[in-house]
Amino acid sequence: MPGNLFSPYFQPGTVWLVGAGPGDPGLLTLHALHALAQADVILHDALVAPEILALAGASARLEPVGKRAGRTSPRQLRINERLIELARAGLRVLRLKGGDPLVFGRGGEEALALAAAGVRFRLVPGVSAGTAAPAYAGIPTTHRMRARSVAFVTGHHVGGGAEEIDWAALAHGADTLVLYMATARLAGIAAALIAAGRAPDEPVALLTDGTRPDQEVLVTSLAEAAAAAACIDPAAATLIVIGAVVDLHRTLAPWLESTPARVAPDPSALAATARL
Amino acid sequence: MPGNLFSPYFQPGTVWLVGAGPGDPGLLTLHALHALAQADVILHDALVAPEILALAGASARLEPVGKRAGRTSPRQLRINERLIELARAGLRVLRLKGGDPLVFGRGGEEALALAAAGVRFRLVPGVSAGTAAPAYAGIPTTHRMRARSVAFVTGHHVGGGAEEIDWAALAHGADTLVLYMATARLAGIAAALIAAGRAPDEPVALLTDGTRPDQEVLVTSLAEAAAAAACIDPAAATLIVIGAVVDLHRTLAPWLESTPARVAPDPSALAATARL
Repeated sequence: MPGNLFSPYFQPGTVWLVGAGPGDPGLLTLHALHALAQADVILHDALVAPEILALAGASARLEPVGKRAGRTSPRQLRINERLIELARAGLRVLRLKGGDPLVFGRGGEEALALAAAGVRFRLVPGVSAGTAAPAYAGIPTTHRMRARSVAFVTGHHVGGGAEEIDWAALAHGADTLVLYMATARLAGIAAALIAAGRAPDEPVALLTDGTRPDQEVLVTSLAEAAAAAACIDPAAATLIVIGAVVDLHRTLAPWLESTPARVAPDPSALAATARL
Repeated sequence: MPGNLFSPYFQPGTVWLVGAGPGDPGLLTLHALHALAQADVILHDALVAPEILALAGASARLEPVGKRAGRTSPRQLRINERLIELARAGLRVLRLKGGDPLVFGRGGEEALALAAAGVRFRLVPGVSAGTAAPAYAGIPTTHRMRARSVAFVTGHHVGGGAEEIDWAALAHGADTLVLYMATARLAGIAAALIAAGRAPDEPVALLTDGTRPDQEVLVTSLAEAAAAAACIDPAAATLIVIGAVVDLHRTLAPWLESTPARVAPDPSALAATARL
Protein backbone atom coordinates (compact mmCIF):
# COMPACT_ATOMS: atom_id res chain seq x y z
CA MET A 1 0.00 0.00 0.00
CA PRO A 2 1.35 3.42 -0.82
CA GLY A 3 1.47 5.95 1.97
CA ASN A 4 3.38 5.90 5.20
CA LEU A 5 3.33 3.19 7.82
CA PHE A 6 1.79 5.41 10.45
CA SER A 7 -1.36 6.54 8.68
CA PRO A 8 -4.69 4.78 8.90
CA TYR A 9 -6.51 3.62 5.77
CA PHE A 10 -8.34 6.47 4.03
CA GLN A 11 -11.83 4.96 3.77
CA PRO A 12 -13.89 5.75 0.65
CA GLY A 13 -16.95 7.76 1.66
CA THR A 14 -15.14 9.61 4.44
CA VAL A 15 -13.76 13.13 4.75
CA TRP A 16 -10.38 14.04 6.20
CA LEU A 17 -10.16 17.61 7.50
CA VAL A 18 -6.42 18.21 7.33
CA GLY A 19 -4.06 21.05 8.20
CA ALA A 20 -1.38 21.70 5.58
CA GLY A 21 0.74 23.77 7.94
CA PRO A 22 1.79 27.40 7.62
CA GLY A 23 3.44 27.35 4.18
CA ASP A 24 6.84 25.63 4.24
CA PRO A 25 6.07 22.21 2.70
CA GLY A 26 8.60 20.67 5.13
CA LEU A 27 6.12 21.36 7.91
CA LEU A 28 3.55 19.04 6.34
CA THR A 29 2.74 16.04 8.55
CA LEU A 30 3.07 12.41 7.47
CA HIS A 31 -0.71 12.04 7.76
CA ALA A 32 -1.23 15.02 5.43
CA LEU A 33 1.25 13.59 2.91
CA HIS A 34 -0.59 10.27 3.05
CA ALA A 35 -3.98 11.96 2.60
CA LEU A 36 -2.74 13.89 -0.44
CA ALA A 37 -1.52 10.71 -2.06
CA GLN A 38 -4.72 8.76 -1.33
CA ALA A 39 -7.50 11.29 -1.87
CA ASP A 40 -9.89 11.11 -4.84
CA VAL A 41 -10.83 14.77 -4.54
CA ILE A 42 -9.16 17.65 -2.68
CA LEU A 43 -11.02 20.79 -1.64
CA HIS A 44 -8.31 23.26 -0.73
CA ASP A 45 -7.92 26.81 0.53
CA ALA A 46 -6.14 29.46 -1.53
CA LEU A 47 -3.42 29.64 1.13
CA VAL A 48 -2.22 26.08 0.54
CA ALA A 49 1.11 26.28 -1.31
CA PRO A 50 1.37 24.92 -4.89
CA GLU A 51 4.31 22.67 -3.88
CA ILE A 52 1.96 20.98 -1.40
CA LEU A 53 -0.85 20.52 -3.93
CA ALA A 54 1.73 19.00 -6.30
CA LEU A 55 1.92 16.06 -3.86
CA ALA A 56 -1.62 14.99 -4.77
CA GLY A 57 -2.02 11.65 -6.48
CA ALA A 58 -2.10 11.71 -10.29
CA SER A 59 -5.82 10.90 -10.48
CA ALA A 60 -6.94 13.28 -7.73
CA ARG A 61 -9.27 16.15 -8.67
CA LEU A 62 -8.41 19.54 -7.15
CA GLU A 63 -11.24 21.90 -6.21
CA PRO A 64 -10.12 25.30 -4.94
CA VAL A 65 -12.62 26.67 -2.42
CA GLY A 66 -10.31 28.99 -0.55
CA LYS A 67 -10.70 32.50 0.51
CA ARG A 68 -8.24 35.27 1.07
CA ALA A 69 -9.07 38.39 3.03
CA GLY A 70 -11.14 40.73 0.92
CA ARG A 71 -11.83 38.36 -1.95
CA THR A 72 -15.03 36.54 -2.75
CA SER A 73 -15.17 32.79 -2.18
CA PRO A 74 -17.70 30.00 -2.13
CA ARG A 75 -19.77 30.37 0.99
CA GLN A 76 -19.18 28.08 3.94
CA LEU A 77 -22.55 26.35 3.61
CA ARG A 78 -21.76 25.50 0.00
CA ILE A 79 -18.45 23.96 1.07
CA ASN A 80 -20.20 21.88 3.75
CA GLU A 81 -22.74 20.63 1.18
CA ARG A 82 -20.03 19.78 -1.32
CA LEU A 83 -18.07 17.74 1.25
CA ILE A 84 -21.21 15.74 2.10
CA GLU A 85 -22.13 15.23 -1.57
CA LEU A 86 -18.66 13.94 -2.48
CA ALA A 87 -18.48 11.61 0.54
CA ARG A 88 -21.93 10.19 -0.26
CA ALA A 89 -20.66 9.49 -3.80
CA GLY A 90 -18.16 7.13 -2.15
CA LEU A 91 -15.05 9.24 -2.70
CA ARG A 92 -12.10 9.78 -0.39
CA VAL A 93 -12.52 13.50 0.27
CA LEU A 94 -9.61 15.61 1.51
CA ARG A 95 -10.47 19.05 2.88
CA LEU A 96 -7.06 20.75 3.03
CA LYS A 97 -6.61 23.99 4.95
CA GLY A 98 -3.67 26.21 5.73
CA GLY A 99 -2.22 25.89 9.25
CA ASP A 100 -4.36 23.87 11.65
CA PRO A 101 -7.98 23.20 10.64
CA LEU A 102 -9.31 23.94 14.14
CA VAL A 103 -7.40 27.15 14.89
CA PHE A 104 -9.48 29.82 13.13
CA GLY A 105 -9.88 27.40 10.23
CA ARG A 106 -13.62 26.73 10.61
CA GLY A 107 -12.87 23.02 10.65
CA GLY A 108 -15.23 22.63 13.58
CA GLU A 109 -18.14 23.93 11.51
CA GLU A 110 -17.40 21.51 8.70
CA ALA A 111 -17.07 18.65 11.17
CA LEU A 112 -20.47 19.50 12.69
CA ALA A 113 -22.06 19.53 9.23
CA LEU A 114 -20.54 16.12 8.45
CA ALA A 115 -21.72 14.69 11.78
CA ALA A 116 -25.25 16.02 11.17
CA ALA A 117 -25.24 14.32 7.76
CA GLY A 118 -23.93 11.05 9.20
CA VAL A 119 -20.63 11.22 7.30
CA ARG A 120 -17.58 9.84 9.06
CA PHE A 121 -14.52 12.06 9.17
CA ARG A 122 -11.01 12.40 10.58
CA LEU A 123 -9.47 15.55 12.07
CA VAL A 124 -5.76 15.87 11.26
CA PRO A 125 -4.09 18.77 13.09
CA GLY A 126 -1.37 20.73 11.36
CA VAL A 127 1.43 23.02 12.47
CA SER A 128 -0.24 26.36 13.18
CA ALA A 129 1.09 29.59 11.72
CA GLY A 130 0.65 31.07 15.20
CA THR A 131 3.67 29.21 16.54
CA ALA A 132 5.59 28.46 13.34
CA ALA A 133 5.79 31.92 11.78
CA PRO A 134 7.26 33.36 15.01
CA ALA A 135 9.69 30.40 15.27
CA TYR A 136 11.03 31.10 11.77
CA ALA A 137 11.64 34.70 12.88
CA GLY A 138 13.50 33.64 16.04
CA ILE A 139 10.58 34.41 18.35
CA PRO A 140 9.52 31.72 20.87
CA THR A 141 5.84 32.19 21.73
CA THR A 142 6.55 31.09 25.30
CA HIS A 143 9.78 31.61 27.19
CA ARG A 144 10.90 31.16 30.77
CA MET A 145 10.66 34.45 32.69
CA ARG A 146 9.14 36.29 29.70
CA ALA A 147 5.97 34.40 28.78
CA ARG A 148 4.15 31.74 30.77
CA SER A 149 1.08 32.03 28.57
CA VAL A 150 0.17 32.75 24.97
CA ALA A 151 -3.23 33.65 23.54
CA PHE A 152 -4.28 33.16 19.92
CA VAL A 153 -6.97 35.61 18.89
CA THR A 154 -8.70 36.43 15.64
CA GLY A 155 -9.23 40.07 14.71
CA HIS A 156 -11.66 39.01 12.01
CA HIS A 157 -15.23 39.94 12.91
CA VAL A 158 -17.53 37.06 12.15
CA GLY A 159 -20.65 38.91 13.31
CA GLY A 160 -23.91 37.13 14.00
CA GLY A 161 -23.83 37.30 17.76
CA ALA A 162 -20.21 36.47 18.45
CA GLU A 163 -18.99 38.37 21.46
CA GLU A 164 -16.28 40.95 21.15
CA ILE A 165 -12.84 40.19 22.54
CA ASP A 166 -12.28 41.72 26.00
CA TRP A 167 -8.94 43.34 25.14
CA ALA A 168 -8.53 44.87 28.60
CA ALA A 169 -8.79 41.44 30.22
CA LEU A 170 -6.59 39.85 27.58
CA ALA A 171 -3.94 42.52 28.18
CA HIS A 172 -3.49 41.12 31.71
CA GLY A 173 -4.52 37.54 31.04
CA ALA A 174 -1.80 36.42 28.63
CA ASP A 175 1.85 37.38 28.25
CA THR A 176 2.23 36.78 24.50
CA LEU A 177 -0.61 37.74 22.17
CA VAL A 178 -0.77 36.26 18.67
CA LEU A 179 -3.32 37.94 16.43
CA TYR A 180 -4.67 36.36 13.23
CA MET A 181 -6.33 38.46 10.52
CA ALA A 182 -6.01 41.62 12.59
CA THR A 183 -3.95 43.94 10.37
CA ALA A 184 -6.92 46.13 9.44
CA ARG A 185 -8.07 46.50 13.06
CA LEU A 186 -4.66 46.87 14.70
CA ALA A 187 -5.00 50.58 15.53
CA GLY A 188 -8.01 49.95 17.77
CA ILE A 189 -6.54 46.80 19.29
CA ALA A 190 -3.19 48.45 20.14
CA ALA A 191 -4.97 51.45 21.69
CA ALA A 192 -7.13 49.16 23.82
CA LEU A 193 -4.11 47.17 25.02
CA ILE A 194 -2.18 50.35 25.92
CA ALA A 195 -5.23 51.79 27.68
CA ALA A 196 -5.40 48.58 29.73
CA GLY A 197 -1.79 48.93 30.81
CA ARG A 198 0.45 47.23 28.23
CA ALA A 199 3.53 49.39 27.62
CA PRO A 200 3.53 51.53 24.46
CA ASP A 201 7.14 50.46 23.80
CA GLU A 202 6.32 46.75 24.11
CA PRO A 203 7.75 45.03 21.03
CA VAL A 204 5.49 43.84 18.23
CA ALA A 205 6.37 41.70 15.20
CA LEU A 206 4.39 41.71 11.96
CA LEU A 207 5.06 38.45 10.13
CA THR A 208 3.92 38.19 6.51
CA ASP A 209 3.99 34.91 4.58
CA GLY A 210 5.72 33.32 7.58
CA THR A 211 7.79 30.16 6.91
CA ARG A 212 7.72 30.88 3.13
CA PRO A 213 10.95 31.77 1.27
CA ASP A 214 9.67 35.34 0.88
CA GLN A 215 8.61 35.75 4.53
CA GLU A 216 8.85 39.30 5.88
CA VAL A 217 9.56 40.21 9.49
CA LEU A 218 8.84 43.74 10.67
CA VAL A 219 9.60 44.55 14.32
CA THR A 220 8.05 47.64 15.83
CA SER A 221 6.38 48.76 19.08
CA LEU A 222 2.79 48.66 20.27
CA ALA A 223 2.55 52.46 19.87
CA GLU A 224 3.85 52.32 16.28
CA ALA A 225 2.28 49.02 15.21
CA ALA A 226 -0.79 50.44 13.47
CA ALA A 227 1.33 52.79 11.34
CA ALA A 228 3.58 49.86 10.40
CA ALA A 229 0.56 47.67 9.57
CA ALA A 230 -0.75 50.36 7.20
CA CYS A 231 2.22 49.62 4.92
CA ILE A 232 1.25 45.94 4.56
CA ASP A 233 -1.08 44.58 1.88
CA PRO A 234 -4.32 43.88 3.80
CA ALA A 235 -4.88 40.80 1.62
CA ALA A 236 -1.52 39.30 2.71
CA ALA A 237 -1.32 36.54 5.30
CA THR A 238 0.05 38.56 8.22
CA LEU A 239 0.36 37.39 11.80
CA ILE A 240 0.94 39.85 14.65
CA VAL A 241 2.93 38.90 17.76
CA ILE A 242 2.87 41.17 20.82
CA GLY A 243 5.04 40.63 23.89
CA ALA A 244 8.48 40.61 25.47
CA VAL A 245 9.39 37.45 23.53
CA VAL A 246 9.60 39.54 20.35
CA ASP A 247 12.87 41.04 21.66
CA LEU A 248 14.53 37.60 21.39
CA HIS A 249 14.40 38.01 17.59
CA ARG A 250 17.46 40.31 17.76
CA THR A 251 19.57 37.73 19.58
CA LEU A 252 18.34 34.58 17.88
CA ALA A 253 17.89 35.68 14.26
CA PRO A 254 21.63 36.06 13.47
CA TRP A 255 22.25 32.42 14.43
CA LEU A 256 19.06 31.04 13.00
CA GLU A 257 19.12 29.05 9.79
CA SER A 258 15.57 30.06 9.00
CA THR A 259 15.54 30.20 5.24
CA PRO A 260 13.12 27.55 4.05
CA ALA A 261 14.58 25.14 1.55
CA ARG A 262 14.22 25.90 -2.10
CA VAL A 263 11.94 23.35 -3.63
CA ALA A 264 13.05 21.16 -6.50
CA PRO A 265 10.81 22.27 -9.38
CA ASP A 266 10.69 18.82 -10.97
CA PRO A 267 7.06 17.62 -10.74
CA SER A 268 7.98 13.97 -11.28
CA ALA A 269 10.32 14.09 -8.29
CA LEU A 270 7.51 15.57 -6.21
CA ALA A 271 5.14 12.86 -7.36
CA ALA A 272 7.75 10.30 -6.32
CA THR A 273 7.78 11.80 -2.83
CA ALA A 274 4.01 11.50 -2.68
CA ARG A 275 4.22 7.80 -3.51
CA LEU A 276 6.68 7.03 -0.71
CA MET B 1 20.75 12.41 -0.89
CA PRO B 2 18.42 10.68 1.51
CA GLY B 3 15.73 12.80 3.13
CA ASN B 4 12.84 14.60 1.61
CA LEU B 5 12.98 17.20 -1.15
CA PHE B 6 11.69 20.00 1.02
CA SER B 7 14.25 19.92 3.80
CA PRO B 8 17.44 21.95 3.85
CA TYR B 9 20.82 20.29 4.26
CA PHE B 10 21.57 19.38 7.89
CA GLN B 11 24.97 21.06 8.31
CA PRO B 12 27.56 19.31 10.50
CA GLY B 13 28.28 21.49 13.52
CA THR B 14 24.72 22.78 13.76
CA VAL B 15 21.82 21.99 16.09
CA TRP B 16 18.23 21.47 15.00
CA LEU B 17 15.67 22.08 17.76
CA VAL B 18 12.75 20.01 16.51
CA GLY B 19 9.22 19.29 17.67
CA ALA B 20 8.20 15.64 17.40
CA GLY B 21 4.50 16.41 17.76
CA PRO B 22 2.11 15.20 20.45
CA GLY B 23 2.57 11.43 20.20
CA ASP B 24 0.95 9.99 17.07
CA PRO B 25 3.95 9.40 14.76
CA GLY B 26 1.73 10.40 11.81
CA LEU B 27 1.84 13.97 13.12
CA LEU B 28 5.60 14.14 12.62
CA THR B 29 6.62 16.76 10.05
CA LEU B 30 8.70 16.04 6.95
CA HIS B 31 11.49 18.22 8.40
CA ALA B 32 11.49 16.15 11.59
CA LEU B 33 11.61 12.89 9.62
CA HIS B 34 14.54 14.29 7.61
CA ALA B 35 16.35 15.42 10.75
CA LEU B 36 15.95 11.98 12.36
CA ALA B 37 17.43 10.30 9.29
CA GLN B 38 20.36 12.74 9.03
CA ALA B 39 21.38 13.39 12.63
CA ASP B 40 24.61 12.03 14.12
CA VAL B 41 23.33 12.37 17.67
CA ILE B 42 19.81 12.81 19.04
CA LEU B 43 19.09 14.30 22.46
CA HIS B 44 15.47 13.46 23.14
CA ASP B 45 12.83 13.99 25.78
CA ALA B 46 11.20 11.07 27.57
CA LEU B 47 7.86 11.99 25.98
CA VAL B 48 9.05 11.25 22.43
CA ALA B 49 7.42 7.97 21.31
CA PRO B 50 9.61 4.91 20.63
CA GLU B 51 8.13 4.59 17.10
CA ILE B 52 9.50 8.05 16.35
CA LEU B 53 12.96 7.31 17.75
CA ALA B 54 12.98 4.16 15.60
CA LEU B 55 13.14 6.48 12.56
CA ALA B 56 16.67 7.56 13.50
CA GLY B 57 19.46 6.64 11.11
CA ALA B 58 21.29 3.40 11.87
CA SER B 59 24.47 5.18 12.97
CA ALA B 60 22.78 7.86 15.08
CA ARG B 61 23.50 7.89 18.80
CA LEU B 62 20.47 8.39 21.06
CA GLU B 63 20.90 10.35 24.29
CA PRO B 64 17.79 10.53 26.47
CA VAL B 65 17.72 13.79 28.43
CA GLY B 66 14.02 14.02 29.00
CA LYS B 67 12.04 14.73 32.02
CA ARG B 68 8.62 13.69 33.11
CA ALA B 69 6.72 15.45 35.84
CA GLY B 70 8.08 14.45 39.21
CA ARG B 71 11.13 12.53 38.02
CA THR B 72 14.72 13.61 38.11
CA SER B 73 16.41 14.62 34.87
CA PRO B 74 19.61 16.23 33.68
CA ARG B 75 19.43 19.91 34.47
CA GLN B 76 18.71 22.39 31.71
CA LEU B 77 22.18 23.96 31.87
CA ARG B 78 23.76 20.56 31.37
CA ILE B 79 21.60 20.00 28.27
CA ASN B 80 22.62 23.38 26.87
CA GLU B 81 26.30 22.58 27.44
CA ARG B 82 25.96 19.17 25.85
CA LEU B 83 24.34 20.63 22.70
CA ILE B 84 27.19 23.14 22.35
CA GLU B 85 29.86 20.49 22.99
CA LEU B 86 28.42 18.12 20.36
CA ALA B 87 28.00 20.87 17.76
CA ARG B 88 31.58 22.05 18.32
CA ALA B 89 32.71 18.47 17.71
CA GLY B 90 31.31 18.87 14.20
CA LEU B 91 28.26 16.65 14.63
CA ARG B 92 24.75 17.11 13.29
CA VAL B 93 22.88 17.49 16.58
CA LEU B 94 19.14 16.88 16.79
CA ARG B 95 17.38 18.11 19.93
CA LEU B 96 14.02 16.36 19.74
CA LYS B 97 11.17 17.44 21.98
CA GLY B 98 7.55 16.42 22.36
CA GLY B 99 4.99 18.76 20.78
CA ASP B 100 6.39 22.12 19.67
CA PRO B 101 9.82 23.11 20.99
CA LEU B 102 8.74 26.71 21.68
CA VAL B 103 5.40 26.04 23.40
CA PHE B 104 6.44 25.27 26.99
CA GLY B 105 9.33 23.23 25.56
CA ARG B 106 12.17 25.50 26.72
CA GLY B 107 13.45 25.57 23.15
CA GLY B 108 13.96 29.31 23.46
CA GLU B 109 16.39 28.83 26.33
CA GLU B 110 18.40 26.29 24.37
CA ALA B 111 18.40 28.57 21.32
CA LEU B 112 19.71 31.46 23.43
CA ALA B 113 22.50 29.27 24.82
CA LEU B 114 23.47 28.21 21.29
CA ALA B 115 23.44 31.83 20.04
CA ALA B 116 25.62 32.91 22.98
CA ALA B 117 28.09 30.14 22.10
CA GLY B 118 28.08 31.09 18.42
CA VAL B 119 26.52 27.79 17.31
CA ARG B 120 24.15 27.94 14.35
CA PHE B 121 20.79 26.28 14.77
CA ARG B 122 17.40 25.71 13.15
CA LEU B 123 14.02 25.89 14.88
CA VAL B 124 11.55 23.34 13.51
CA PRO B 125 8.04 23.75 14.89
CA GLY B 126 5.91 20.71 15.58
CA VAL B 127 2.22 20.04 16.03
CA SER B 128 1.44 21.12 19.58
CA ALA B 129 -0.45 18.86 21.97
CA GLY B 130 -2.52 21.92 22.87
CA THR B 131 -4.44 21.76 19.60
CA ALA B 132 -3.90 18.13 18.57
CA ALA B 133 -5.04 16.32 21.72
CA PRO B 134 -8.37 18.21 21.72
CA ALA B 135 -8.78 17.55 17.96
CA TYR B 136 -8.40 13.79 18.52
CA ALA B 137 -11.16 14.06 21.12
CA GLY B 138 -13.51 15.97 18.79
CA ILE B 139 -12.87 19.34 20.48
CA PRO B 140 -11.98 22.30 18.24
CA THR B 141 -9.95 24.83 20.26
CA THR B 142 -11.64 27.68 18.36
CA HIS B 143 -15.14 27.66 16.93
CA ARG B 144 -17.44 30.24 15.42
CA MET B 145 -19.82 31.66 18.08
CA ARG B 146 -18.20 29.62 20.87
CA ALA B 147 -14.52 30.60 20.91
CA ARG B 148 -12.84 33.49 19.16
CA SER B 149 -9.70 33.10 21.25
CA VAL B 150 -7.69 30.37 22.92
CA ALA B 151 -4.99 30.72 25.55
CA PHE B 152 -2.24 28.18 26.25
CA VAL B 153 -1.02 28.37 29.82
CA THR B 154 1.38 26.34 31.90
CA GLY B 155 0.44 25.42 35.43
CA HIS B 156 4.01 24.41 36.14
CA HIS B 157 5.71 26.82 38.50
CA VAL B 158 9.16 27.64 37.21
CA GLY B 159 9.95 29.96 40.10
CA GLY B 160 12.86 32.34 40.10
CA GLY B 161 10.92 35.55 39.53
CA ALA B 162 8.36 34.42 37.01
CA GLU B 163 5.10 36.21 37.53
CA GLU B 164 1.97 34.36 38.52
CA ILE B 165 -0.78 33.93 35.95
CA ASP B 166 -3.59 36.46 36.41
CA TRP B 167 -6.40 33.90 36.37
CA ALA B 168 -9.13 36.51 36.90
CA ALA B 169 -8.00 38.42 33.80
CA LEU B 170 -7.55 35.21 31.82
CA ALA B 171 -11.08 34.14 32.77
CA HIS B 172 -12.41 37.08 30.74
CA GLY B 173 -9.57 37.40 28.24
CA ALA B 174 -9.82 34.10 26.40
CA ASP B 175 -12.77 31.85 25.55
CA THR B 176 -10.95 28.50 25.46
CA LEU B 177 -8.25 27.80 28.05
CA VAL B 178 -5.73 25.03 27.45
CA LEU B 179 -3.63 24.18 30.49
CA TYR B 180 -0.35 22.27 30.30
CA MET B 181 1.12 20.53 33.35
CA ALA B 182 -1.66 21.81 35.57
CA THR B 183 -3.24 18.64 36.98
CA ALA B 184 -1.73 19.06 40.44
CA ARG B 185 -2.82 22.71 40.72
CA LEU B 186 -6.26 22.39 39.12
CA ALA B 187 -8.26 22.89 42.34
CA GLY B 188 -6.84 26.37 42.85
CA ILE B 189 -7.07 27.29 39.19
CA ALA B 190 -10.72 26.18 38.85
CA ALA B 191 -11.65 28.07 42.02
CA ALA B 192 -9.98 31.23 40.73
CA LEU B 193 -11.76 30.98 37.38
CA ILE B 194 -15.15 30.45 39.04
CA ALA B 195 -14.50 33.33 41.44
CA ALA B 196 -13.78 35.52 38.40
CA GLY B 197 -17.08 34.64 36.80
CA ARG B 198 -16.61 31.49 34.70
CA ALA B 199 -19.61 29.20 35.18
CA PRO B 200 -19.18 26.23 37.56
CA ASP B 201 -20.95 24.01 35.01
CA GLU B 202 -18.67 25.07 32.16
CA PRO B 203 -17.37 21.90 30.51
CA VAL B 204 -13.80 20.73 31.05
CA ALA B 205 -11.92 17.92 29.29
CA LEU B 206 -8.95 16.10 30.80
CA LEU B 207 -6.94 14.55 27.97
CA THR B 208 -4.27 12.04 28.90
CA ASP B 209 -1.78 10.70 26.36
CA GLY B 210 -3.67 12.59 23.67
CA THR B 211 -3.27 11.31 20.07
CA ARG B 212 -1.76 8.03 21.36
CA PRO B 213 -3.63 4.73 20.89
CA ASP B 214 -4.31 4.66 24.64
CA GLN B 215 -5.50 8.28 24.88
CA GLU B 216 -8.07 8.93 27.60
CA VAL B 217 -10.78 11.58 27.43
CA LEU B 218 -12.55 12.58 30.63
CA VAL B 219 -15.27 15.24 30.34
CA THR B 220 -16.38 16.99 33.50
CA SER B 221 -17.30 20.50 34.71
CA LEU B 222 -15.22 23.31 36.15
CA ALA B 223 -16.72 22.68 39.59
CA GLU B 224 -15.90 18.96 39.46
CA ALA B 225 -12.62 19.16 37.55
CA ALA B 226 -10.27 19.03 40.54
CA ALA B 227 -11.96 15.90 41.89
CA ALA B 228 -11.67 14.29 38.47
CA ALA B 229 -8.01 15.30 38.16
CA ALA B 230 -7.25 13.64 41.49
CA CYS B 231 -7.94 10.27 39.84
CA ILE B 232 -5.25 10.83 37.18
CA ASP B 233 -1.62 9.83 37.59
CA PRO B 234 0.16 13.17 38.22
CA ALA B 235 3.15 11.90 36.20
CA ALA B 236 0.95 11.34 33.12
CA ALA B 237 0.92 13.77 30.19
CA THR B 238 -2.46 15.38 30.80
CA LEU B 239 -3.81 18.44 29.03
CA ILE B 240 -6.81 20.34 30.39
CA VAL B 241 -9.28 22.12 28.10
CA ILE B 242 -11.83 24.55 29.56
CA GLY B 243 -14.59 26.19 27.55
CA ALA B 244 -17.82 25.85 25.61
CA VAL B 245 -16.01 24.05 22.77
CA VAL B 246 -15.66 20.98 25.01
CA ASP B 247 -19.41 20.35 24.52
CA LEU B 248 -18.77 19.65 20.81
CA HIS B 249 -17.09 16.40 21.87
CA ARG B 250 -20.50 14.79 22.36
CA THR B 251 -21.63 15.58 18.81
CA LEU B 252 -18.36 15.05 16.97
CA ALA B 253 -16.85 12.05 18.75
CA PRO B 254 -19.37 9.46 17.42
CA TRP B 255 -18.46 10.37 13.81
CA LEU B 256 -14.79 10.88 14.41
CA GLU B 257 -12.29 8.30 13.20
CA SER B 258 -9.86 9.25 15.91
CA THR B 259 -8.11 6.01 16.68
CA PRO B 260 -4.46 6.47 15.77
CA ALA B 261 -3.11 3.87 13.43
CA ARG B 262 -1.49 0.81 14.88
CA VAL B 263 2.14 0.90 14.05
CA ALA B 264 3.80 -1.92 12.18
CA PRO B 265 6.20 -3.39 14.72
CA ASP B 266 8.76 -4.37 12.10
CA PRO B 267 11.88 -2.28 12.80
CA SER B 268 13.35 -2.85 9.32
CA ALA B 269 10.19 -1.41 7.73
CA LEU B 270 10.50 1.62 9.99
CA ALA B 271 14.14 2.04 9.08
CA ALA B 272 13.14 1.93 5.41
CA THR B 273 10.73 4.80 6.01
CA ALA B 274 13.53 6.79 7.58
CA ARG B 275 15.64 6.36 4.48
CA LEU B 276 12.98 7.68 2.05
